[in-house]
Amino acid sequence: MNAKENVAVVGVGRMGANIARRLRDLGYPVTAVYDADRARAQAVAGELGATAPETLAMVTVSADTIVTVVSDDASMRAIFAANGDSLLDGAARKLFVNCATISPQVHEDIERLAESRGASSLEACMASSITQAREGTLYLMVGGSGAAFERARPMLEGMSSSLRYIGPAGSAAQVKALVNMVMNSNTVALAEGLGLGAALGLDLTMLREVFAQTGANSRVLETDGADMQAREHDVYFSAAHAAKDSGIALVLGSECGLDLPVAAAAKAQYDRMIELGLGELDKSGVAELTFPGRSPA
Amino acid sequence: MNAKENVAVVGVGRMGANIARRLRDLGYPVTAVYDADRARAQAVAGELGATAPETLAMVTVSADTIVTVVSDDASMRAIFAANGDSLLDGAARKLFVNCATISPQVHEDIERLAESRGASSLEACMASSITQAREGTLYLMVGGSGAAFERARPMLEGMSSSLRYIGPAGSAAQVKALVNMVMNSNTVALAEGLGLGAALGLDLTMLREVFAQTGANSRVLETDGADMQAREHDVYFSAAHAAKDSGIALVLGSECGLDLPVAAAAKAQYDRMIELGLGELDKSGVAELTFPGRSPA
Repeated sequence: MNAKENVAVVGVGRMGANIARRLRDLGYPVTAVYDADRARAQAVAGELGATAPETLAMVTVSADTIVTVVSDDASMRAIFAANGDSLLDGAARKLFVNCATISPQVHEDIERLAESRGASSLEACMASSITQAREGTLYLMVGGSGAAFERARPMLEGMSSSLRYIGPAGSAAQVKALVNMVMNSNTVALAEGLGLGAALGLDLTMLREVFAQTGANSRVLETDGADMQAREHDVYFSAAHAAKDSGIALVLGSECGLDLPVAAAAKAQYDRMIELGLGELDKSGVAELTFPGRSPA
Repeated sequence: MNAKENVAVVGVGRMGANIARRLRDLGYPVTAVYDADRARAQAVAGELGATAPETLAMVTVSADTIVTVVSDDASMRAIFAANGDSLLDGAARKLFVNCATISPQVHEDIERLAESRGASSLEACMASSITQAREGTLYLMVGGSGAAFERARPMLEGMSSSLRYIGPAGSAAQVKALVNMVMNSNTVALAEGLGLGAALGLDLTMLREVFAQTGANSRVLETDGADMQAREHDVYFSAAHAAKDSGIALVLGSECGLDLPVAAAAKAQYDRMIELGLGELDKSGVAELTFPGRSPA
């Protein structure tokens, strides 16, 4: 892909908006942004000197590469609808780079739809978050055709500090779902360990140090341990997202006939957070369910 | 403690025998070893030039410091029985250093019993394994009185590369139980992630690399990930031990009124291994339950 190719971004929540800002900084003309929340699209468009078209078809017309960062399977299928307003209108020769964490099957279906219109589609799954999007230091796992990957590679390298081609469409989303499933299980396991430590009256700072030096160590101990102790659950990766991503993995497991009881128990805790109105807390907020005296139930 | 004080070791399975070897290397006269399996005791005694007394009372007589490394709560209570053959016979001024992973309450009870006989008792919980015992590089967490800790400190420093005083009797065992509970949950979570990856046909070496670079990373990924992939489950920390240790933590949780669903689901998997005759596999063997085509059930 030529660095001068025009780019549009669909879905400009915090991740999408930061990806747009990063692409602008890299010298990509960001011609259009789109969001189901039009006010949000207009705000980001104003900031970046982009347009905020009213239709998806106009987004596709405006750019060579369209980056999509939407929230779930249904939103993804909606923006690539076979009928009605759709990114697929006038999509010939366009490249879609799809960053949302969604079901692998949806990536496969959208690749098929895009190719049927003469376009290319690539999944670029992000195993990192808002700050990394802004700074161009995402961990990106890519699925799709080798040709689409080569076309997108310069832009993806500008967005990421680690870029890994996984395989055909759907495979990167599978790996992403597995990463998040394990991460979410480890997060609930950590919340249980610290919660029980609190119930026993142990010094949690000491306990986190011991965990870090022993078989209990984990990446989520580094990222979420202190937050669990301090009840700092400002959203970085929400409980609702955790429930969604573990759900994607559990569906894959079910389709494979696998029994995954720990992942299921972890997802149930995130589902319970949503039921209790805590779904927009950070995933570390699962500690609110396991620490003594915290649970709202 | 004077470095010349005599030491005895009760329980000379692989951990206890290696602790005895290490103490001998450090210059401690190892006067006696004892094991429920007398042939094992005699073999280790022969190797170390120690005696293998027939009674626990004779063990206590033989040494100033008695290190115990037994398998569970019941064994621990048996060797410190109030009546019959017991380490408590003639225990005045002796120091007991108890290394087994057992329930915190048992450490408290044994400290009380020991002190009633004019002896001292210390828990020295090990968050590491057989190689570290031999090399004197254990991660040791100590619970008991400050005086007992100071008396044991030179010997404990010779056994460990990391020595941490946690607090009164029972507190180190609490921390140890929490470490192992979180470790066991993370282990099952990892086995589920890799098992589902295998079911999806993903390259597991690639998947482990991605896990290591993302929020799915953990100490057990380092220690057990490759073994799960390769089905190398030679025992290092057995599934049966994992079930026992998670069980200790879950009892503590239950006593505190806490709901710990992920830890419970993980323990259930280790219990299932025992039911299937797999309890003496390494904890990594839980992958046998989650990988497609492996389960013996």
